[in-house]
Amino acid sequence: MSTPVSVGRASAIYREGIVFDALNICNFSREIFQEWRDAGVTGVSVTCAVWENFRDTIQNIVQWGRWFDENADLIVQARSVADIRAAKASDRTAVVLSWQNTSSIEDQLGYVRIFRDLGVKIMQLTYNTQNYSGAGYIEATDSGLTGFGREVVDEMARLGIVCDLSHVGVQTARDVIAYSKVPPAFTHILPYGLKAHPRNKRDEDVRALADAGGMVGVSLFAPSMARGNESTIDDYIQAVDYLINLAGEDGVGLGTDWSQGHPRPGTFLQWCNLDKGYARQLTPFGTTEVKKPAGIARISQMPNLPLAMARAGWSEAKIEKMLGENWLRYLTRVWGA
Amino acid sequence: MSTPVSVGRASAIYREGIVFDALNICNFSREIFQEWRDAGVTGVSVTCAVWENFRDTIQNIVQWGRWFDENADLIVQARSVADIRAAKASDRTAVVLSWQNTSSIEDQLGYVRIFRDLGVKIMQLTYNTQNYSGAGYIEATDSGLTGFGREVVDEMARLGIVCDLSHVGVQTARDVIAYSKVPPAFTHILPYGLKAHPRNKRDEDVRALADAGGMVGVSLFAPSMARGNESTIDDYIQAVDYLINLAGEDGVGLGTDWSQGHPRPGTFLQWCNLDKGYARQLTPFGTTEVKKPAGIARISQMPNLPLAMARAGWSEAKIEKMLGENWLRYLTRVWGA
Repeated sequence: MSTPVSVGRASAIYREGIVFDALNICNFSREIFQEWRDAGVTGVSVTCAVWENFRDTIQNIVQWGRWFDENADLIVQARSVADIRAAKASDRTAVVLSWQNTSSIEDQLGYVRIFRDLGVKIMQLTYNTQNYSGAGYIEATDSGLTGFGREVVDEMARLGIVCDLSHVGVQTARDVIAYSKVPPAFTHILPYGLKAHPRNKRDEDVRALADAGGMVGVSLFAPSMARGNESTIDDYIQAVDYLINLAGEDGVGLGTDWSQGHPRPGTFLQWCNLDKGYARQLTPFGTTEVKKPAGIARISQMPNLPLAMARAGWSEAKIEKMLGENWLRYLTRVWGA
Repeated sequence: MSTPVSVGRASAIYREGIVFDALNICNFSREIFQEWRDAGVTGVSVTCAVWENFRDTIQNIVQWGRWFDENADLIVQARSVADIRAAKASDRTAVVLSWQNTSSIEDQLGYVRIFRDLGVKIMQLTYNTQNYSGAGYIEATDSGLTGFGREVVDEMARLGIVCDLSHVGVQTARDVIAYSKVPPAFTHILPYGLKAHPRNKRDEDVRALADAGGMVGVSLFAPSMARGNESTIDDYIQAVDYLINLAGEDGVGLGTDWSQGHPRPGTFLQWCNLDKGYARQLTPFGTTEVKKPAGIARISQMPNLPLAMARAGWSEAKIEKMLGENWLRYLTRVWGA
């Protein structure tokens, strides 16, 4: 049996160790970068495409280049696990560019490598609806991974890119888990076993992902938790423990889904919730109240996480792995050393 | 006084040392890559844009990605001088992606960084005619470096990209030499002092470039040499010595301008010789006979270069510098260590 740690020791683990967050979709700005820093976040995967096509994604990456230049005291682009550890050593937050959709490659397989070379190291295969590669979780019928999708998954595996299945349809996700030569990830999810929401992941799918060597990042999206917008940080830890019970202590990490800085309701989140950014409405989340759990309602409260873990009786090793080391071990496997 | 070397020693310098060629625009294929290897070429800067816009340049880089994968036994992409030296150690030819035009960035300054991150480390500012940045050497009136062009030159300097002025108009090139914070290059030129051709560079401009710390690569384009298509490898060495006399022994290197594998006359070279690839004809070179000098008529004859240098009474140090070390020292200065 592992020994529960004190609150003081838990805070020290957070402060001294790696804190990696596998999904942020904030209204990025120096304020957000400063808040990551003040909260002691080591590394963050940031969404730079949701519905964007090739050219618009390039523009988003141009904007990230400007942010890296203008905020070099706070953030640094990371393309490797070594870059993430180096960021920790230089007191900056490592930023990994990532996608919530493969709309950016349009119909061009060759663009996967172009974006990998630009630093996009995590790509979600589909976002909510059908694309060339497969279905999203909101598509009425999910016919699974397409022929083109297999080529995309192969290319991502070959080039060392994480294939994210968080918003992907159930059948398409199962097909990718069975097919991919490299273990995929759910970067920001919650368990269906605690709340029967179609965006949440069923026990069998979490187990199948973990069995394949994949990683689970746990989201703070309160509407998908058992107690909805009434949830607290302790409910979050309970959801994490539920997923650890399925995926094992080495298979789970953070994937907050921070959307901080975007007005809610507001234009950006409404755009996310329309198919392709302008067509039919897919979910009410762009226009209804969406909270994060009390005690972990904004980035600045991330140092509360180790405290809640200590309250839940976690061991030192479990806290360290869950806060970041699990992600780094998994990323080393997919990206290469 | 330096001591002339023997032919045997000259060959050994070529074989053991660095041979860097600052411009190739071949019909690239495994045959070319094999010929580079067989000829012992350490590194080559390859043209991947002449008139192409943003999207078409991306496609060319996608194609280079395929070539790097399929010919990894012969070639390897280089983004640094260390990469070039590592290629030598692994018996492969280092390939640096480069442009003969900034058409690829269209009107987007931010794309300079995108392409730098994709490995385009040498960019010629203009190709023959006017673009957003300045004039080419065939433009009737050259009004010099434009406002946008200053921003492009600044961005290239900031990001560690070589600004090539070979096909650039006289006034625009002078403006860049005076303006740029980082020394530009003539990657593939011949001296106007030996042949009064508008594409050739005047003594004063070669001197100004060298005074600014820039580099001169000497082209094998026989029609621009004193004896035209009748030129031999010894005429080439004479042209090199003429340029060394202006730019110094540390300021000159190879810039062959190999276009091997393209039929001449032929579609690709005609395309190069029409403004923007389809408009008015700019030079007769797409349709007339163009030779390389006898003795150095194709890539496989590059090992003849040190022999001709020895015949001309060159010292060991001069051969070593001219074959590659001058380029590597210059590239270290522009690209960073």
